[in-house]
Amino acid sequence: MTVDQAATRLAERALSTTYGDPARHLAVRATIDTVGVMVGGLPQPDAEIVMSYARAAAPAGRVTALGLDATTSPAMAAFVNGALAHVLDYDDVSHAMKGHPSAVLVPALLALGEHTDASGRQLLDAYLAGFDTAVAVAAGLGVAEHYRRGWHATSTIGVFAAAAAGSRLLGLDVVRTAHALGMAASFAGGSRQNFGSTTKSLHVARAAESAVLAVQLAATGGTANHAAIEGPMGFFALLGPGMDGAAFEEALGRSAGVLEPGGLNVKKYPCCYNTHRAADAALATFEQHRGEGVGSARVRVEPTGSAALIYHAPQTGLQGKFCGEYVVATALLLGRVGLDDFTDEAVHRPAIRDLLS
Amino acid sequence: MTVDQAATRLAERALSTTYGDPARHLAVRATIDTVGVMVGGLPQPDAEIVMSYARAAAPAGRVTALGLDATTSPAMAAFVNGALAHVLDYDDVSHAMKGHPSAVLVPALLALGEHTDASGRQLLDAYLAGFDTAVAVAAGLGVAEHYRRGWHATSTIGVFAAAAAGSRLLGLDVVRTAHALGMAASFAGGSRQNFGSTTKSLHVARAAESAVLAVQLAATGGTANHAAIEGPMGFFALLGPGMDGAAFEEALGRSAGVLEPGGLNVKKYPCCYNTHRAADAALATFEQHRGEGVGSARVRVEPTGSAALIYHAPQTGLQGKFCGEYVVATALLLGRVGLDDFTDEAVHRPAIRDLLS
Repeated sequence: MTVDQAATRLAERALSTTYGDPARHLAVRATIDTVGVMVGGLPQPDAEIVMSYARAAAPAGRVTALGLDATTSPAMAAFVNGALAHVLDYDDVSHAMKGHPSAVLVPALLALGEHTDASGRQLLDAYLAGFDTAVAVAAGLGVAEHYRRGWHATSTIGVFAAAAAGSRLLGLDVVRTAHALGMAASFAGGSRQNFGSTTKSLHVARAAESAVLAVQLAATGGTANHAAIEGPMGFFALLGPGMDGAAFEEALGRSAGVLEPGGLNVKKYPCCYNTHRAADAALATFEQHRGEGVGSARVRVEPTGSAALIYHAPQTGLQGKFCGEYVVATALLLGRVGLDDFTDEAVHRPAIRDLLS
Repeated sequence: MTVDQAATRLAERALSTTYGDPARHLAVRATIDTVGVMVGGLPQPDAEIVMSYARAAAPAGRVTALGLDATTSPAMAAFVNGALAHVLDYDDVSHAMKGHPSAVLVPALLALGEHTDASGRQLLDAYLAGFDTAVAVAAGLGVAEHYRRGWHATSTIGVFAAAAAGSRLLGLDVVRTAHALGMAASFAGGSRQNFGSTTKSLHVARAAESAVLAVQLAATGGTANHAAIEGPMGFFALLGPGMDGAAFEEALGRSAGVLEPGGLNVKKYPCCYNTHRAADAALATFEQHRGEGVGSARVRVEPTGSAALIYHAPQTGLQGKFCGEYVVATALLLGRVGLDDFTDEAVHRPAIRDLLS
């Protein structure tokens, strides 16, 4: 089953769906959680690299970018806040998109919302429309295989979510929203090979900024091909295993995906979500056997449950976030998995390195 | 044959190769041609959309962006000038990279060069190092199949070229240049489905801007994974048919690719290079049979020789640039293929539509 006019159909749905208070409540929670994570990210060295760049290159504007002295343009604010939202890997997670929806959505929406004096309710409904866009694009793309190959779905799919959300927030019509989504098809990128480096946060920074760019350019007449998502050389063909038309249709027929099981989860620990269940088990083990010492540990996970854990002897705090062994060792030895455990110094603590080796 | 440490090896080569005057002469010609094409692009409606965006969002800085009233940051100048360099589809072409090297390289280098008061010779050598980077990345990627699938090699490979060139211009060391190239691996994108729309120029704008961003962030400590290009989830794996290690090695062993046959060609007509040979033939036919009228025309091209010509009934000037039938009809009926033939009005001229139908 093929897909026709994906951008137009996503646009129609994103601009027209109404949401109730239960979904809006989750959008409030996601926004608050994301801003908290952004603030938490401010002291990170990788965040400072991005903020330092931005301080030298930020235009005048009316939008708040955390860490900058002056307000700036929507695109630059989305870029900076996007990096901050992702640098800790503490941002919320959606199983349906295999990624972090709010890290892209919230910075883009805060930027465009502050720029245009949007109301809080407009922002929440735009967030929810963006979230549902992510779910539908992920379904049509075949996100599991897309992610398995090495694409960072947070940015590749997040850019569509934020473009749809931003279009709704700015009141674009269906045609212009479809052009913004078509631009997003060309702006989508980000490789999981770059997990554990500055570049991972830049995926989110760039996706949020790309969405703002797409929305603002589409608003003034910028165009994309009408089949940029589903065409033979479009997004599904280039970044996916192909195109799952039935799954796309099914997802388009649902809404308020944040309310579904696996829709949106807030993180417990500031490291890769793939480590969370093992961390839970290790912390429980620590409580049960406190003071007994640790000889060795064996962790079993579901297939693909460790796909993102690409480091096994982390050299930096960022790499530690993507090392299952390191997270489990920290939990078993210290009874916690916290921000202080993901500095460049922390990953070299002798007791933990002993257990890793 | 696999590739190891692609970013480091590309960086070592890009920073160390010396070039002679014949190659530098071609770099001068490419720079002049590109600036001419940028100036020619200024009146285009799609360029105005980008410049209008930039006028509202350009930071203060010391770099010239055509069409803006004030100088701006390197990234914004690269963005604007990149769009201008590509909007006419009049920019130079390299068979080796299956794309337009100078449209990305020259805007990025002019931006970083003006920002740092680089000399003309530094700029030319950086251009040549960037060009050779493009040739090697294209060879390792398997650019023919990459392009056939629908990737726009101008941006996907151009971002590596400009990141290497910019790193050389700024005097980065090998480690930081490799990080910039690793970031480029995540910033690479652009779908040929978007040919004939505003988004095609944005591919180049974004690639030039991405390269500036990568170079400036790497210069201040930003990191990427060391295997971002050749790793199992890296650029070659995600955007290519795989990885051609032998071709990559062979290309790394050569230099001054601009001097090779098919290295760099300047365009004769402001439309897709795939139309050029047919346009030559049609113009020759016009001269031979001037005044006899045209009943029908049949054009044969080599396999894949019309891959980029995705429109057959163009509705806009931009679409006309990617319509072989339109270009041939224009040449046969008017004896020319010029800028005025690619406006939204021109593609609807009755005599030409008659021949197309």
